[in-house]
Amino acid sequence: MSILRSEVRRAQERAAELLASAGVVLTAAERQAIEVAGFGLGQLETQGLELVTYVNTDRYCAKDLVLFPRQTCPEHRHPPVDGEPGKMETFRCRRGLVYLYVEGEAAAAPQAVVPSGSESYYTVFHEIALQPGEQYTIAPNTKHWFQAGPEGAVVSEFSSTSRDECDIFTDPRIERMPRVVED
Amino acid sequence: MSILRSEVRRAQERAAELLASAGVVLTAAERQAIEVAGFGLGQLETQGLELVTYVNTDRYCAKDLVLFPRQTCPEHRHPPVDGEPGKMETFRCRRGLVYLYVEGEAAAAPQAVVPSGSESYYTVFHEIALQPGEQYTIAPNTKHWFQAGPEGAVVSEFSSTSRDECDIFTDPRIERMPRVVED
Repeated sequence: MSILRSEVRRAQERAAELLASAGVVLTAAERQAIEVAGFGLGQLETQGLELVTYVNTDRYCAKDLVLFPRQTCPEHRHPPVDGEPGKMETFRCRRGLVYLYVEGEAAAAPQAVVPSGSESYYTVFHEIALQPGEQYTIAPNTKHWFQAGPEGAVVSEFSSTSRDECDIFTDPRIERMPRVVED
Repeated sequence: MSILRSEVRRAQERAAELLASAGVVLTAAERQAIEVAGFGLGQLETQGLELVTYVNTDRYCAKDLVLFPRQTCPEHRHPPVDGEPGKMETFRCRRGLVYLYVEGEAAAAPQAVVPSGSESYYTVFHEIALQPGEQYTIAPNTKHWFQAGPEGAVVSEFSSTSRDECDIFTDPRIERMPRVVED
C-alpha cells in the first residue's frame, strides 16, 4: 500500500517538531528529507516510523528515529548480508519514553500495546524501557520492535551499516521501502 | 604531564553544562565518566577536549565531543590498525561553531587561532566551518584538528571503531591517554 505525499509532508513536519523539542538541529534540506516509513500498512499513526539518516557508510551508520505517541516500529530483524553479520544497533533515548522488545524472557505485563489486528506478528516480549539518557544495544539478527510512550519519542540509533531493504519483518504484509503517491 | 583530579572534575561539570544546553541528556554515571583529555600538555583550556563515549564496539562508535570556547583538539590522524583502514569519522555540529581543518588547499585566512607556542605542530589548514546541523566526514588516516568558536561547541562524532591509543599526533609531546593525579 502506498502513502500520499500530503501525509508524508504532515508527518515530516510533526517529526521535525519532536526533534527540535529534543534539541536536535536539522538543516532545511534535512527537514525536507525526513523519511516517513508507513511499512505499506496504511496506518502510519499506529505502525510507522520517521527517520533522519545522518550518515551511512560501509563501516557505520547514524540516524535519529522519531515515534509519534504510541507509534510502533513493527517487529523485524537484520539478517547477515554478503557474509557480514547482521546490523548491530545501539538505541539511545533522547526524549520521551520508548519501550523496546527483544528476544528473551517475556514481560509479565508489557507496557506497550500491540497494534490491534497485528497481534500475531508481534512475538518477542522481553521488555527494555528507555528514558532519556538510557540506551541498549541490540544484537545482530535478533527480533525486535519498539513503541513510544504517550508523548512520543526521539531515539538516536548508532549502528553498523544500514541495509534497510534487507530487513526481515515478521508481518509478511510489510513493505519496508515506501511508495509515495503524489496528491 | 599529568592532570589534577580537581581540574578534571571542574572540566566535567562545565562540559555537562554545555551538553545540557545542546539538549543532550546524560545519566548521572555518564556525567561522572566524562573523559577530559588534556593531551599531557598542561594547558587544558587551550589544547584539550571533553568526550562522552556512548558506544564503541568492533563495528562502530559514537561519541559527543565538547569544546570550551576556543579550545582546540590538536592535529592528529587515525592510522590503519591490524589490517583495517584507519578510523573514519563524521563530525556533526550540535551547538556553537566548530572550525575543522583537514589536508587540502589551505584557507587564506583561517578563522581558528593556532595555540601559541605550538605553531609547528599545526600543518593542515583546509577549513571547514560547521554550524549546528552541519556535518563533515573525515577520511581515514587524514591529518585533522579542530577548534570551537567563542561560545564553545558540542559535536557528535559517528565513526568506525575508536582506538584512541593508536592516534598519531603531530606534536610529539602529546600523550593521548590522560594520567590523573588525585589532589
